[in-house]
Amino acid sequence: MRQKPSGIVTLITDFGLSGEYVGALKGAILRVNPRCQIVDITHQIDPQNILQASFVLQKCYSYYPPGTVHGVVVDPGVGTRRRAAVVEKDKYFFVGPDNGVFSGLLSAGGEIRAREIIRKEYFFTPLSDTFHGRDVFAPVAGHLSLGLDPAKLGPGVKNLVRIDFPDPRRGKGHLVARILWADSFGNLITNVTRDEYGRKLESPFQIRGKGWIIDRLSRTYGEGKPGQPLALFGSGGLLEISVNLGNARKTLELDPGNSITIQFGREKI
Amino acid sequence: MRQKPSGIVTLITDFGLSGEYVGALKGAILRVNPRCQIVDITHQIDPQNILQASFVLQKCYSYYPPGTVHGVVVDPGVGTRRRAAVVEKDKYFFVGPDNGVFSGLLSAGGEIRAREIIRKEYFFTPLSDTFHGRDVFAPVAGHLSLGLDPAKLGPGVKNLVRIDFPDPRRGKGHLVARILWADSFGNLITNVTRDEYGRKLESPFQIRGKGWIIDRLSRTYGEGKPGQPLALFGSGGLLEISVNLGNARKTLELDPGNSITIQFGREKI
Amino acid sequence: MRQKPSGIVTLITDFGLSGEYVGALKGAILRVNPRCQIVDITHQIDPQNILQASFVLQKCYSYYPPGTVHGVVVDPGVGTRRRAAVVEKDKYFFVGPDNGVFSGLLSAGGEIRAREIIRKEYFFTPLSDTFHGRDVFAPVAGHLSLGLDPAKLGPGVKNLVRIDFPDPRRGKGHLVARILWADSFGNLITNVTRDEYGRKLESPFQIRGKGWIIDRLSRTYGEGKPGQPLALFGSGGLLEISVNLGNARKTLELDPGNSITIQFGREKI
Repeated sequence: MRQKPSGIVTLITDFGLSGEYVGALKGAILRVNPRCQIVDITHQIDPQNILQASFVLQKCYSYYPPGTVHGVVVDPGVGTRRRAAVVEKDKYFFVGPDNGVFSGLLSAGGEIRAREIIRKEYFFTPLSDTFHGRDVFAPVAGHLSLGLDPAKLGPGVKNLVRIDFPDPRRGKGHLVARILWADSFGNLITNVTRDEYGRKLESPFQIRGKGWIIDRLSRTYGEGKPGQPLALFGSGGLLEISVNLGNARKTLELDPGNSITIQFGREKI
Repeated sequence: MRQKPSGIVTLITDFGLSGEYVGALKGAILRVNPRCQIVDITHQIDPQNILQASFVLQKCYSYYPPGTVHGVVVDPGVGTRRRAAVVEKDKYFFVGPDNGVFSGLLSAGGEIRAREIIRKEYFFTPLSDTFHGRDVFAPVAGHLSLGLDPAKLGPGVKNLVRIDFPDPRRGKGHLVARILWADSFGNLITNVTRDEYGRKLESPFQIRGKGWIIDRLSRTYGEGKPGQPLALFGSGGLLEISVNLGNARKTLELDPGNSITIQFGREKI
Repeated sequence: MRQKPSGIVTLITDFGLSGEYVGALKGAILRVNPRCQIVDITHQIDPQNILQASFVLQKCYSYYPPGTVHGVVVDPGVGTRRRAAVVEKDKYFFVGPDNGVFSGLLSAGGEIRAREIIRKEYFFTPLSDTFHGRDVFAPVAGHLSLGLDPAKLGPGVKNLVRIDFPDPRRGKGHLVARILWADSFGNLITNVTRDEYGRKLESPFQIRGKGWIIDRLSRTYGEGKPGQPLALFGSGGLLEISVNLGNARKTLELDPGNSITIQFGREKI
């Protein structure tokens, strides 16, 4: 039996919050379903950062009521040959470009069904070359929130585009982690997952920087003295470098793209 | 017959997203109509930039369901003599200060009806001097979303304030365009409309900058090599200068207010 | 009789607008009550600025329909011993950490009832250490918006944490005010309340800076010449320093944390 829609459509885009893009996108959804509730997850994905969009989607989608439609519009290839896709997983619907934004869904395992969106009767016409968010994904999301069967949108596809986080680089007795991005508190989120490295980090380790050292895992952001750096697994399951009551990005002068080295074992004298 | 309300109220303001202004505005709408759906178009109009608000409104409003109330609160003259207005056009309602924010509606042609908002029984009282968004436009928008006849709000007015985009300056064999603003991708939006100049730009032309040249119109942001500048008509119908997978504003060192020259004809050797 | 819920949940957080935090928070509310309307007041409280969150809440909450649930998640002590609280005042419900975010409600006087939130059957489990917004406050807000009796959440508490604005410092014939923050227009909001100092400022006074002087109270932001500094009581009842059609923060080179001196009496020659 098909999943009943929740009437909720969420949005993850890199449109930013100025300009007319977000407004037109929302209008085009409501035009199809004036009763749906639109929920902004974020419009501030770093421009064209497909990996970040995929991560945010993965960390959010399952908190919503079953039958929610998640729209992900980070679409640097709009108007080129990339496919438009509708995906079904865990009782949710997802729409967006098939360029990797669904990677987080794929990597999590579980049953997944995908279709290419080709049926123009669900688009706004004339179809623009530069704004399929408004002309394709928005009206399709609106129709899905009304209960449209995804099978009506186009043929099934396999091999959705999948891009993965860069893995941390393992060395002899150490791990080189990458800072993926910083949140608005300045916490530095790395590519070290709790699933893979959580147990390892219960053993002694050190992370060193200019004038600072972290040698144990914290449980909360409020541990240690104010201004002191700490490491913990954040709510998304990734290792973060944080500063108690401070901004790690500014204090430690580390930015997304930078590496940090986790040295295992006790400190040598 | 009067247009039935959609129950949706959209917001375009220059309030920014910190502080209490947006929250008070939304509360004052919901106080009147707890069932209406409030949709943020943007709260990041450049402070007091009436022209930009007018443009965003013009590009968004018609995607919404008929009967939607669009609130535009960019109001540098709040508390002074400027009129408060309610406008009806194309089955939509608009409320805001009569200071030019409705210019985009006027320039598009078509039937338009406007009234001055003077009936205090629809305001919050005591009326503040500095925040008519909360005290006038919000409750009025709430009432309109419940089906209030605009005629109840005050007398009809003609000659709504209209301000226009600066036109591009035509020279002998060239056109000097103005960069109006940049979007969050760094795309530079100019005052060259597709309506007026679309056909002209199908003939040979050149736009030159420091170390770069654009000599043809692109259709999508993904054309050309990464990092290469390109020109296209954006989804709003205005000519944009963009950089494939990059940020034109930063790369080309051009800002809103700057000019670019479009030279028509083939390059001379 | 208990207050009937309005079905509206508002949010004040310091999460910022990028990342997955806001999306997960909203999902966790809607998971409990898919029909509730979520309203963003702001997610841009300065990180961990409890006083600012308290102020924004105080200035906004009463515009909403009775029965609205206001969620305030500025929670530097998450996972430590601070209490989670539900508060009832003026027919509204409030949820958040008991760390001072409710100070504005307490200082306003009037009846107030508070309870500690301890009943885990209303939480998401497993409860994380770092994100009680998603795991505690969101589902509790969802349940309250469905009509849950706050008494079900835990025992009554007295002595909610209260922190206060720093008072202006009174000197002989003058007052030293603090700039608390700047809004998105660059208006500088001070700790001088209309309630306490409104009448005093009807008498002659001067505020002086580098090359500028303000010697009277304005009523609107549009008074005086463009570019001229002015002082007025903003819609929140606090004295603001503003620049007509300009940005006071930039023009006057004053920032939050800086002081200004209000000299009473007529200027001496």
